[in-house]
This record gives sequence, C-alpha cells and structure tokens, in this order.
Amino acid sequence: MSVHLYDVSIPPLIRALTNMSAILDKAIAHAAAKKIDSTTMAQLRLIPDMHPLSRQVQIACDTAKGAAGRLANVEIPKHEDTETTLPELQARIAKTVDFLRTITAAQTAGDETRTIEIKFPNGSWKFTAKSYVTDFVLPNFYFHDSMLYALLRKAGVEIGKGDFLGAIA
Amino acid sequence: MSVHLYDVSIPPLIRALTNMSAILDKAIAHAAAKKIDSTTMAQLRLIPDMHPLSRQVQIACDTAKGAAGRLANVEIPKHEDTETTLPELQARIAKTVDFLRTITAAQTAGDETRTIEIKFPNGSWKFTAKSYVTDFVLPNFYFHDSMLYALLRKAGVEIGKGDFLGAIA
Repeated sequence: MSVHLYDVSIPPLIRALTNMSAILDKAIAHAAAKKIDSTTMAQLRLIPDMHPLSRQVQIACDTAKGAAGRLANVEIPKHEDTETTLPELQARIAKTVDFLRTITAAQTAGDETRTIEIKFPNGSWKFTAKSYVTDFVLPNFYFHDSMLYALLRKAGVEIGKGDFLGAIA
Repeated sequence: MSVHLYDVSIPPLIRALTNMSAILDKAIAHAAAKKIDSTTMAQLRLIPDMHPLSRQVQIACDTAKGAAGRLANVEIPKHEDTETTLPELQARIAKTVDFLRTITAAQTAGDETRTIEIKFPNGSWKFTAKSYVTDFVLPNFYFHDSMLYALLRKAGVEIGKGDFLGAIA
C-alpha cells in the first residue's frame, strides 16, 4: 500500500485549512449575533500563557506552507503576522491554501529519506522528508487547528467534530 | 517520494500514544503535588457539553486501534470504557500500543484505494484506505490528543509543545 508523501501531506492540509476557514465563518456569525468585536475573538486564549487564537491560526498556516515549500524545495513565502480579526485570519488561510495549490506531486517527488533541517537561533531539527511529515508537520498542524477549535467551542460557537473533519464522502 | 501507508499511520500513532502517556505522567505528578484526586483529573472538561478527559483518551485510543485493525484487516480488540483515573487511562494507552505493535507493514500492504467502510447505527462512512488515514484517522486522533493537552495545560500541568510532539532526533 504505497502512497506519495505529497498525498498524505499537501491535499490533507488544504482540506484541513478549508475546514478551519469554514469554522471561522461560524465564529464570525456568532460574534456578529452576540455583538462581540472580531479583535476580541482573535485574542481568545485558553490560559494566559498560551498563544491567542490569532497565533494558533498563524502557526497552523506556517506549518502548512513550510511543509509545502520544503517538500517541493521551493522558497517558502513570507507572511507577516499582522492579522487582528477573524476575516483577516481567513485571508491568511486563503493565501496559504493558494500557495499549497501551486505545489505539484511531481515537485515533491524524490527520496523520502533525504534530510530536511529546520534551523533555529540556537539549534536545529533534522528530519527525513518522511519523519518531517509524520513527526512534525501533521501533529503540529492538527495541534494548532485543534486549539482554534477548542477556543471557539469554549466561547460558545456552535461547532462539532463534523466541522473539524469536514465532509466525509 | 513513495511511502507505505503503514509508515504514515501505525508508527506515528505509536509515537503519539507514547507521548500522551508521558504527558499523563506529568499530570499524575501534578495531581499528587496538589493533592487532586485522579478521578477529578479524569473528569476535566473544557465546557460542560464536551467529552471529559477520560473520553478524549478513549476516543484517541479507539481511533488508533481501529486504524490498525482495519488497515491490517484483522479483528479490532474490544476495550471497555471503564477507566476513571489517570493511571487507568495510561493502561488503556499501553494496551492500544501493544495491539498496534502486533501489526506489521506486510499486513497492511495492498491496494490503497480499497474501500474501508465504518458503519454507524444510522449510516456509514466510506473511505479508501488512503483517505481513511488522511481524512479521518490522523485528524481525529490528533484532535483528541490535543484536547487532552488543552485540558491538562488549562489545569496548570507544566507541559509544552515538546511534550506533545515528543523528542525530535
């Protein structure tokens, strides 16, 4: 049962980002109905020393565009973290999806054991292309995607697991 | 860049379940230090109409063992939802990992487009083996794994992203 690393990364990320944007649609409608400012929604936190909602979306997006760029070996676009409202976060998701859609399976073809290194100011993480997807990209993406869900669900937005997973054919 | 469906499902699930159990170690130590009963911890909820911590772990485990059984086409073991403490939830995780470890890549070899159907009392979901992994197993598993994290982090347990992702080589 052999699949391309592309198939288990890029299309599922596009799908999940699309689901995130639809969840934000419900959050925007909820905020409008309750007359809650969109910036207040974007600043929601589970606990003071965790990232706010806006940062959860930004990190999810950055994880996805990093994966697309590194797997295809093309430059990762720089997106500044300037979003302060839910519609702005949807725009961030949209430009992330736009970038992911430019990546083809052919571009990501190659050795799944090749090294992918992510450098930090004081160190680096070394992965194979495969372990980068399985041990970082997917868990990290879904972590922040789930934090967005948790924040909105706790705030009273009417969402369920079906919104998180999206339509199952 | 071709990988086996096994490689992007079973070993990453074992890894994530192992990380969950280590996070529960920290929760157990936190509860002991603060003299919080383990059953109280297991009943934590983000909001009253969401599942408690115990159920988050049970669903994550069931998602993993369902994946292992269905991909290898072997019987999925039945685990009753009787856990009421954090050590009991760790035992649930341990027996899930034990089952996943019995599955070999060879057992899951086959056509990644074969149909996997999950039946409910009033309907069913139809997947290919591939879409079952990408559109249900991984997002659903990481969703509940992340809810466990969110519940414990909110309760003051000192955990960070490194605990969720586990050691990066």
